Amino acid sequence: MTTTPVSLIDELIAGDQRALALAISAIEDRKPGYRELVGRLHHETTDAHVIGVTGSPGSGKSTLVNRLAEFYRSRDETVGIIAIDPSSPFTGGAVLGDRIRMSAAVGDDGIFVRSMSARGSLGGLSTATADAVKAMDAAGKDRIIIETVGAGQNEIDVVKTADSVLVLVPPQSGDAVQMLKAGILEIADIFVVNKADLDGADRTVKELLDLIEHDPIDQEANGWSTSIVETVATDGTGVDDLGSTIDTHSAYLETSNQGIERDRKRYAEEVNTIVREELAILLEREIDRQGGIDELAEAIRIRETDPYTVAESLVDPLRVSLGDDVD
Amino acid sequence: MTTTPVSLIDELIAGDQRALALAISAIEDRKPGYRELVGRLHHETTDAHVIGVTGSPGSGKSTLVNRLAEFYRSRDETVGIIAIDPSSPFTGGAVLGDRIRMSAAVGDDGIFVRSMSARGSLGGLSTATADAVKAMDAAGKDRIIIETVGAGQNEIDVVKTADSVLVLVPPQSGDAVQMLKAGILEIADIFVVNKADLDGADRTVKELLDLIEHDPIDQEANGWSTSIVETVATDGTGVDDLGSTIDTHSAYLETSNQGIERDRKRYAEEVNTIVREELAILLEREIDRQGGIDELAEAIRIRETDPYTVAESLVDPLRVSLGDDVD
Repeated sequence: MTTTPVSLIDELIAGDQRALALAISAIEDRKPGYRELVGRLHHETTDAHVIGVTGSPGSGKSTLVNRLAEFYRSRDETVGIIAIDPSSPFTGGAVLGDRIRMSAAVGDDGIFVRSMSARGSLGGLSTATADAVKAMDAAGKDRIIIETVGAGQNEIDVVKTADSVLVLVPPQSGDAVQMLKAGILEIADIFVVNKADLDGADRTVKELLDLIEHDPIDQEANGWSTSIVETVATDGTGVDDLGSTIDTHSAYLETSNQGIERDRKRYAEEVNTIVREELAILLEREIDRQGGIDELAEAIRIRETDPYTVAESLVDPLRVSLGDDVD
Repeated sequence: MTTTPVSLIDELIAGDQRALALAISAIEDRKPGYRELVGRLHHETTDAHVIGVTGSPGSGKSTLVNRLAEFYRSRDETVGIIAIDPSSPFTGGAVLGDRIRMSAAVGDDGIFVRSMSARGSLGGLSTATADAVKAMDAAGKDRIIIETVGAGQNEIDVVKTADSVLVLVPPQSGDAVQMLKAGILEIADIFVVNKADLDGADRTVKELLDLIEHDPIDQEANGWSTSIVETVATDGTGVDDLGSTIDTHSAYLETSNQGIERDRKRYAEEVNTIVREELAILLEREIDRQGGIDELAEAIRIRETDPYTVAESLVDPLRVSLGDDVD
């Protein structure tokens, strides 16, 4: 079964779920032509609202994401969900059975769920996710939710590029301080104290308010002060509230310059990541040409040469073409 | 006051502490000519024994490092100490007052203490540390101890390149599991249960034994099974034991192939890091040539182009010189 990119793109834009799944598989597998595919998709995107959801394991992220998807569906908005799971092995593009965790999603064409696992190093995951967002956007999804499975640095890096970033904090977790250290708090547009029916929710809200108040950045002056919403995802309490708060944030992004600013930052980051991946490949080839890294390292070890001289010999061929001086 | 690199190197090799301090400052500041300096120093190195010390804050790292330094001094071995502190602001090379935390070190020419803070992104800290190790090695230090101040990923990456890696675990900290998650345990050659006079030390030792036993890598088959040593750094208890265990590990590295393997891996990593830093600079210039990243991102945002097309336009000039096909 061969689907040429052109008809695939047309079908995808028309909202065909199978075409969307195939496109994301091509992106994840980096099949030949995936760059052209993503390049074309980019021109079909309309800056769908991207919501990032993170928080420590056990904070109830997937349940909340399910509720949020139901909330948007009840408003007749379409939803794409990307679950970032760097720990799961890369399954390959042949697997069409994308994880459907949401019973609500089965049989509903308005929801598309996809999990993404880590590929190579150097930002492979963030590039693949950014590309998958483009595919979902081009396919007409109104809201795209990126959900992390864990809370590792890679996953946080992916989520923080979203338009609206939700950070879940379970009550009495003592997580607040840990998250602050890990730099998770500063990426939050909205704190969600989920499992708010548990003891200690009030105290956690108070801790978060304290953190916001003592933020060295004057949030009010920025036009958006991190909000706190309490939810009980298991029974849906507070989800409407959360939806409204996300709407408010989304409106803020549109009326202020911040939405455009975020888009620019995200695109700059995307370019940087793609370039770094490309350069890593070019470098790998140059190293092979010069005998392989083991041989180069051995030459350094026996003091035939030194790391800087070897590095220069690898970079010089690149330097010449840019018109730089060669030492 | 001008010191030409040549006389600086001669003085450094002769063991002059001031020359060593100046050389490390030049390395940290990346003063013009620092690469040639490090290249020359590399040829003067003799593979001094490098000991990495890490562990969570409060585990007693600096006190233990002081004791270890005293232990080596009592055997008439010279010691260089590098304290990795990414959180402290970069102080600049003009500051000659290197942190002397050790009262014992004052007035003893056999000990040289230096703190290194984070510089640019992309491995600046690990390159600077590797270069500082070379300077200390060339200056004739027998043992070079790299000590992290915190336990962040960057610091761990730096320490894990050492010949012998010590991971400190305080009793009853519950740290063992956290460290396992963070990938700290797997870099350990020797676990040090410091503050072993506290309650719970036995349990912590047992937990560590369990971890070692359940290590998926067959440690015995590798020729070195992670050791556990109990110490009380504040009064010196167990430090002789630790010294002997480090000696045993050092001997293992020399008699097995592992020492050479580690050197090779470290040099390969050094080359990779330097090259990545270089490429980042080249890329920055190419981006500037093409109008700056903000302008490129804006062109993507208004759908004039897309991230992959922009990335290609940045990488293509490099690709040509390597004889690659240009699409």
